[in-house]
Amino acid sequence: MNIVDIILDKRYGRELTDEQIRFFVRGVTDRSIPDYQATALLMAIVLNGMNEREISTLTLEMASSGEQNDLSFVGDITVDKHSTGGVGDKITPLVMPLCSTFGVKTVKLSGRGLGFTGGTVDKFSSIEGFNIDIPKDDFPKYVAESGMVISGQTPDLAPADKILYSLRDVTGTVKSIPLIASSIMSKKLASGADAIVLDVTCGTGAFMKTFEEARIIADTMIKIGRNAGRKVIAVITDMDQPLGNYCGNVLEMREVYDTLRDRGAGDVEDVASIIAANMIKLAGKTGGLSYEELIKECKTRLTDGRALKEYIKLIKSQGGKVTEDGPSYVDEPVEVYKVKADSSGFIFSIKTNELGHCSVALGAGRITKDDDIDYGAGIRFMKKRGDAVLEGDTLCTLYVGRNSKLLNDKETVESIAARVRASYNISTARPLGIRSVIDVVGDK
Amino acid sequence: MNIVDIILDKRYGRELTDEQIRFFVRGVTDRSIPDYQATALLMAIVLNGMNEREISTLTLEMASSGEQNDLSFVGDITVDKHSTGGVGDKITPLVMPLCSTFGVKTVKLSGRGLGFTGGTVDKFSSIEGFNIDIPKDDFPKYVAESGMVISGQTPDLAPADKILYSLRDVTGTVKSIPLIASSIMSKKLASGADAIVLDVTCGTGAFMKTFEEARIIADTMIKIGRNAGRKVIAVITDMDQPLGNYCGNVLEMREVYDTLRDRGAGDVEDVASIIAANMIKLAGKTGGLSYEELIKECKTRLTDGRALKEYIKLIKSQGGKVTEDGPSYVDEPVEVYKVKADSSGFIFSIKTNELGHCSVALGAGRITKDDDIDYGAGIRFMKKRGDAVLEGDTLCTLYVGRNSKLLNDKETVESIAARVRASYNISTARPLGIRSVIDVVGDK
Repeated sequence: MNIVDIILDKRYGRELTDEQIRFFVRGVTDRSIPDYQATALLMAIVLNGMNEREISTLTLEMASSGEQNDLSFVGDITVDKHSTGGVGDKITPLVMPLCSTFGVKTVKLSGRGLGFTGGTVDKFSSIEGFNIDIPKDDFPKYVAESGMVISGQTPDLAPADKILYSLRDVTGTVKSIPLIASSIMSKKLASGADAIVLDVTCGTGAFMKTFEEARIIADTMIKIGRNAGRKVIAVITDMDQPLGNYCGNVLEMREVYDTLRDRGAGDVEDVASIIAANMIKLAGKTGGLSYEELIKECKTRLTDGRALKEYIKLIKSQGGKVTEDGPSYVDEPVEVYKVKADSSGFIFSIKTNELGHCSVALGAGRITKDDDIDYGAGIRFMKKRGDAVLEGDTLCTLYVGRNSKLLNDKETVESIAARVRASYNISTARPLGIRSVIDVVGDK
Repeated sequence: MNIVDIILDKRYGRELTDEQIRFFVRGVTDRSIPDYQATALLMAIVLNGMNEREISTLTLEMASSGEQNDLSFVGDITVDKHSTGGVGDKITPLVMPLCSTFGVKTVKLSGRGLGFTGGTVDKFSSIEGFNIDIPKDDFPKYVAESGMVISGQTPDLAPADKILYSLRDVTGTVKSIPLIASSIMSKKLASGADAIVLDVTCGTGAFMKTFEEARIIADTMIKIGRNAGRKVIAVITDMDQPLGNYCGNVLEMREVYDTLRDRGAGDVEDVASIIAANMIKLAGKTGGLSYEELIKECKTRLTDGRALKEYIKLIKSQGGKVTEDGPSYVDEPVEVYKVKADSSGFIFSIKTNELGHCSVALGAGRITKDDDIDYGAGIRFMKKRGDAVLEGDTLCTLYVGRNSKLLNDKETVESIAARVRASYNISTARPLGIRSVIDVVGDK
């Protein structure tokens, strides 16, 4: 078997055999296949596609290209959760404690954020003292203590995916159903959970711009999971605007705390409750409630203090500092600019990805993986889609950390503010059909 | 401008601008664009194509990526000749002296052979003493002396093409109209000739298997030439069987000498005469003859000793040894096997590329560019398509050089012989429509 023939087969639109896919993934992993051959095959896959069997095989081979987690110590059905990314997505810190109130234990492995999509690891790192680098061998201890553990230590999971992703990133081959689906699912399968709830975002702030695209990716991942003997549910959520009222690490963790004290945003509550309900269902811990009752019960527990109690437990268990005012943060966001509406009307649409890029420009995210981030930076969104605004109303406020260089760089802040303002389309028309959860598909 | 956006544009089937193509070719040449990005773009070009303008720009940029020859010293219209390759192709050593009898001077730059297509440089190197490494600065001296010069020294012509070709070779992106046409034409443009005659081979021993493919490649190269202000004619020739009766370096040069003494094969005479006639026409040296008369005159001069005289002049001018028996060769082919027909009937079809590979296996060609070659190795073809054969008749004889290891390796020779025999399809049906020149297109 040789890689040139494999490339030629896919170039001519032929199905690859399981053996060919295995040869490719192993060669990528042990670096016996040079990058220039890997990228040629990736482009051929992008343009000529893969069928369900090929995608499943690719995923399984990537999943088994490195370490695989053994979560059997949990002694129960384990459920993982994954989001395809968005602006203001603070669902993980909410669903972990919420699931915990139903006795569902969660082990969450998460990467650092890159680009405008924030990473859960960065969010938890904005809590003072919080230790995000939990070695795998210590997971049982933490799960025994709080029923939860979250760790950023994932170096050996699906190394083939890591190599391929870094190549895709620089060769225009990121957007591709087989490659996106296999990339996500390979890591999820290697993570070892029995069941997976996927938060598939769609809209201007997401990777998948339309519902149709999101639905195809969701279906593909569900099939991969099924072929690998895992149950998968995909919740398709709206990313035509930021989720909740904040983006930025400290700002979002404050919003998490507020949500758990019933001072949060409705869309955040909806998405968190529905995702948690599906996780609880897959874990078999519904306690006899119907799906609708379960969602309702999730909403109740999310805001009545029960999830909050579990959340504090999680933070303390991983060394995070909590005072009587709630968690302590590593930084204190400083407001630097109010972005105002330059006309009156309704917020018709929002370039959500551009808001994400602006938040990164304020310091809240990384452009390259070695960048430092400013935990205090971010944006507060005062107006959301469909809201009526008058000229001069504040659309949002920009924040930076207390040590930010931008505190003395008015020019940069103003240029970011101009980009933020231009991200809002204010119209005389009011947008219709806004909903935070669009569909739920899979092994319901 | 950045390469990822260029890859994305071609990935999504968009036209690349001239600036984008220039950026790509320059980045490849100065190695600022890594191979893994170049190969991703190459695959996108293969699968999404290029239009005429894009192909022309790509060609011109590759042609200007290194040195460009200045042939103005010739003081006349210069005509180059290029073949897309085949088995038994000894046309260049024939058309150079033939053109010379019409006062057409030729400067031929040629690479060494790789794979089953022999290189003209290797053929001339099989003549004792022949110096193939003529530095560019000495071309005028040689042209003044014999009206011809042939050199294998082409290190700096179209370096971008050299880099891209080596990548295409290992990423399944060789077969592609825009990439083949631009690769050939970039070298021809950089070679500096005013006009070009292309021998576009098609059939089982050629790169283009069908006439239709050959015609598309021919038309594309003609357009590129026209856009670059050069006249181009393409002669589409048959490669459904080897050209002439021999392949292998010494064997072919002997056949060249025989052809010039009227002891050659009809197909070789036809192809050489028609290609030479088109070269002479483009050079404006027809002497008032019509195209048909010119071809006839070429056939006459090819075999009546006039071309032979020029051929001997060329050999002597570059240091080659000629005795009264003709040129001396560096090796003496030794017959090692007679391949016999295992049934009676007509030679219906021949796997010509397989015969080429068998000749390489005997030692006549290189598999990788650092391989040594055995100048004495090759095959004599006794039967051609349409010939009647009886079981036991000799189809062809295999040769190796007098120092070949294969002289004592019966097993390997027999395995090659078995492959040669399997390359012939002997049928009760007689094939129709065999002709060595299929079409002539371009600036006639």
